Amino acid sequence: MQFNMIEKIRQTNPLIHNITNIVVANYVANGLLALGASPIMADAEQEVAELATFTSALVLNIGTLDAVKVKAMLLAGKAANQQGVPVILDPVGVGATSYRKQAVAELLQQVKFTAIRGNAGEIAQLAGVAWSAKGVDAGEGGADIAQIAQQAAQRYQCVVAVSGEIDYISDGKQLAKIANGTPMFPKITGSGCLLGAVIGAFLALDQQNPFIAVTQACTAYAVAGEIAAQHLQATQYGQFYTGLLDSLAALTDQQVQQLAKVTLLGGDDE
Amino acid sequence: MQFNMIEKIRQTNPLIHNITNIVVANYVANGLLALGASPIMADAEQEVAELATFTSALVLNIGTLDAVKVKAMLLAGKAANQQGVPVILDPVGVGATSYRKQAVAELLQQVKFTAIRGNAGEIAQLAGVAWSAKGVDAGEGGADIAQIAQQAAQRYQCVVAVSGEIDYISDGKQLAKIANGTPMFPKITGSGCLLGAVIGAFLALDQQNPFIAVTQACTAYAVAGEIAAQHLQATQYGQFYTGLLDSLAALTDQQVQQLAKVTLLGGDDE
Amino acid sequence: MQFNMIEKIRQTNPLIHNITNIVVANYVANGLLALGASPIMADAEQEVAELATFTSALVLNIGTLDAVKVKAMLLAGKAANQQGVPVILDPVGVGATSYRKQAVAELLQQVKFTAIRGNAGEIAQLAGVAWSAKGVDAGEGGADIAQIAQQAAQRYQCVVAVSGEIDYISDGKQLAKIANGTPMFPKITGSGCLLGAVIGAFLALDQQNPFIAVTQACTAYAVAGEIAAQHLQATQYGQFYTGLLDSLAALTDQQVQQLAKVTLLGGDDE
Repeated sequence: MQFNMIEKIRQTNPLIHNITNIVVANYVANGLLALGASPIMADAEQEVAELATFTSALVLNIGTLDAVKVKAMLLAGKAANQQGVPVILDPVGVGATSYRKQAVAELLQQVKFTAIRGNAGEIAQLAGVAWSAKGVDAGEGGADIAQIAQQAAQRYQCVVAVSGEIDYISDGKQLAKIANGTPMFPKITGSGCLLGAVIGAFLALDQQNPFIAVTQACTAYAVAGEIAAQHLQATQYGQFYTGLLDSLAALTDQQVQQLAKVTLLGGDDE
Repeated sequence: MQFNMIEKIRQTNPLIHNITNIVVANYVANGLLALGASPIMADAEQEVAELATFTSALVLNIGTLDAVKVKAMLLAGKAANQQGVPVILDPVGVGATSYRKQAVAELLQQVKFTAIRGNAGEIAQLAGVAWSAKGVDAGEGGADIAQIAQQAAQRYQCVVAVSGEIDYISDGKQLAKIANGTPMFPKITGSGCLLGAVIGAFLALDQQNPFIAVTQACTAYAVAGEIAAQHLQATQYGQFYTGLLDSLAALTDQQVQQLAKVTLLGGDDE
Repeated sequence: MQFNMIEKIRQTNPLIHNITNIVVANYVANGLLALGASPIMADAEQEVAELATFTSALVLNIGTLDAVKVKAMLLAGKAANQQGVPVILDPVGVGATSYRKQAVAELLQQVKFTAIRGNAGEIAQLAGVAWSAKGVDAGEGGADIAQIAQQAAQRYQCVVAVSGEIDYISDGKQLAKIANGTPMFPKITGSGCLLGAVIGAFLALDQQNPFIAVTQACTAYAVAGEIAAQHLQATQYGQFYTGLLDSLAALTDQQVQQLAKVTLLGGDDE
C-alpha cells in the first residue's frame, strides 16, 4: 500500500465537523489540528445541518450521549448524506446500555455511514456477535475479530475499523490487519475517539476508496502512537497523551510507509 | 495504616461511573485510567440507572451543574443505592450559589452517600459552619477544619474528606490527618475532582471500611502529587498537570507506605 | 506602555466567570489559574445571574453554542451589566452558521460588552466586512485588519481585539498593533478562547482604561506564547499546549515590558 495522504491533508486542511462528547472534545480538536486538519465542534440542532454545506467530513461520537445530541446527530447525518459528505460513526460503549443500543440503531437506520470505528466489544455488538465488553472498554470475547469486522461491514455496507492490539479494517470483502500501535493507547482517554476523527480527515480526501483511506488513517495513527511511545516508560501516560499530538504533527507519509505493518487479505483478487 | 489497595485496583480495574462537569471530565477519565481503574462518563437520564447494575462506584460532581444533570444524578444515585454501589459526592463550589445549595440539599436528601469530598469552604457549607469561600476555591475561615469534617460526617452519616494543605478525613468518630501533598494541587483545575473519582475507585474495592478506603485514597493521591511536583519548578503547572498522570500510573503501595504522613485520631479505642 | 498588571492579578486573584464551550473549558480554567486568576465555569440559568454579584469579569464564548447556553449568556450578561462587571465576548466561528450570527446579534443587542475578541474572520463578520472564513478558523480576506478592528469597535462601542500573526486592538479611536506571538498559537485548540478569558482577568483589574487593559492582556499572552515556543520544534504542539501554561504561570511584568513589540497609533493626540 502506498501511503500518501498525510501530505495532502496538510495541504488542504479539510474541515472536520465533530459531534462528540465532553470527555474528548478537546483532545480530538487538538489531534485534528496536529494532523493538519481543521476541527469544528458543534452540536446545536439549529446549525448542524448547515455545516454540511461546507465541511469535508462528519464524525458522530456517542460518548456522553443524550437526547439533544441524538437529535443533532440525526439532522447532521442526514444533511451530510444529502451533501455527499462522508459520515463516520464512533459507537462508544454501545453495548453498555439499552439507550446507547437504541440510539445507535436509530443512527444506523437513518444515516448512511461511510465508516464505523470501534473497539472489538463495540463492533461485536453492532455485528450481533456475543462479546463481554466492560463499560466503554473493549472487553473480551471468543469470536474472531477479523470476522466481526467483516460481518459488521457487510451488515452496514460500509468500512469497519476495529481498534485494538491489532487493528482490523474491512469493507465486507477486503480485510487489512495492522500490527502497529502501542499498549499505551488504551491507557489514555480519547485515543479511540481521536482515531475516529482522524479517519474522518482521511475520508475527507478520498471517499472513492474508503477502504484504502480508512486503512491509511488507522496505520498512520498507530505509527504515530508507536513513535510517541518509543522513548517513554511504560507508565508515562501523561507524557504519551501530550507526545501523541507532537508525533501526529511531525508524522510524514514516508515514516508511515517505512514503519507500516499492514497485511491485506481478501478482495477481488482472491 | 497498611497501604495495600493500589495493586488491587490495578488487578480488578473497577468500573467507575462519573457524572461530572465539562471542565474536568477528560482529566478525571485520564486520572482513573492512570490509577488502573476504568472510567465511564455518562449522564443521560435514559441510561444512568442501568449503569448501576454493572459499575463499582458512582461519583457525582456538581461543577457546571444544570437541571438535566441534577435529574440524572438523582436517578443514578438512587439506582446505585439500590444496587449497593458506593456513591461519592463532590460538591464543587456548593456555597457559591443558591442553586448549588438547593441541588446538593436535594441530592443529600434523596441519595445515601458513602463519602463526600470537598475543600474546606465546601464542606463548611455542608456542615452549616460559617466560612468565606471564593467561587469554587476553598477560601478562608476561622473554624477548625478537623471539626468541620467531623460535623459533616456526623450530619450525613458518611465519610467526609476535606482536601487542602492538610487533608482531614472523618467518619464522625475517627479522624485522619494527611500531611502529604503539594502547593501545586490548587494550581491546576480538576485536581480535587480527580481525587473525588480516585476515592470512588478505592471505595469500589472496599465498602466495608470506608474510612480506611477514603484515607488510603487521599494519601495515595497526595503522595502521587508530591512525587509529580518533586523535580518541577514552582510555576510549572502545565508539567504538573501532565506529570500527575504519570505519577499516578507509576505509584505503588510501597511508595505510599514509605512516604505517608498520616495521623490517626479518635475512634473506638479512645 | 507601562506593563504592570500581572503582579496585581496575582495579588488579587480576580474571580472570572466563564460561560464557554466543551472543547476549551478545561484549558481556559487552567490558563486562568496559571495567570493567577480564579476561574469559575457555570452555565445554569438558575445561577449565572447570582454569580455577577461576586465575580470580577464575565467571559461569554460561543463555541459549541446551544439554546440553553444562549439563554444563560443573556441572563449572565444582563446581570453583569447591572453589577458593573465587565463582559467579554468571544464570538467563536460567528460567521460559520446563521445560528451563530443570530445568537451573537442577540447578545450584542441585549448585553453591553466591554471587549470583544476574535480572529480576523470573526471580527470582520461583526463589522459587516466581506471575509472568507473557514469554520472556526480565521480564513483570509482582502480588507485591512486594523480598519476592521476599528469599525467593529465603533459599531459596538467597546474595545475590539483581533488575534492573529499581528494582534490589532482598537477602541474605535486608538489602535495598538502587537507583533509578539508564535505560529504555534493556531495549532492548538483554545488558544484564542484562553486569550478571551485572560482579557477578562485584565479587565477585572481595570475597567476604567479598557483599551490599555486589553492591550496589556494581548501583549502578555503573546509574549507568554513566544517564550513557550522558544525551545520547541515547530511541530511540538502538545509540548506547546502544556508549556504555555508553565509560561503564563512564570510570566512577569518585566518580561512583558522587555519583549513587547507594541505600536500605538491614533487616539486623542493625533
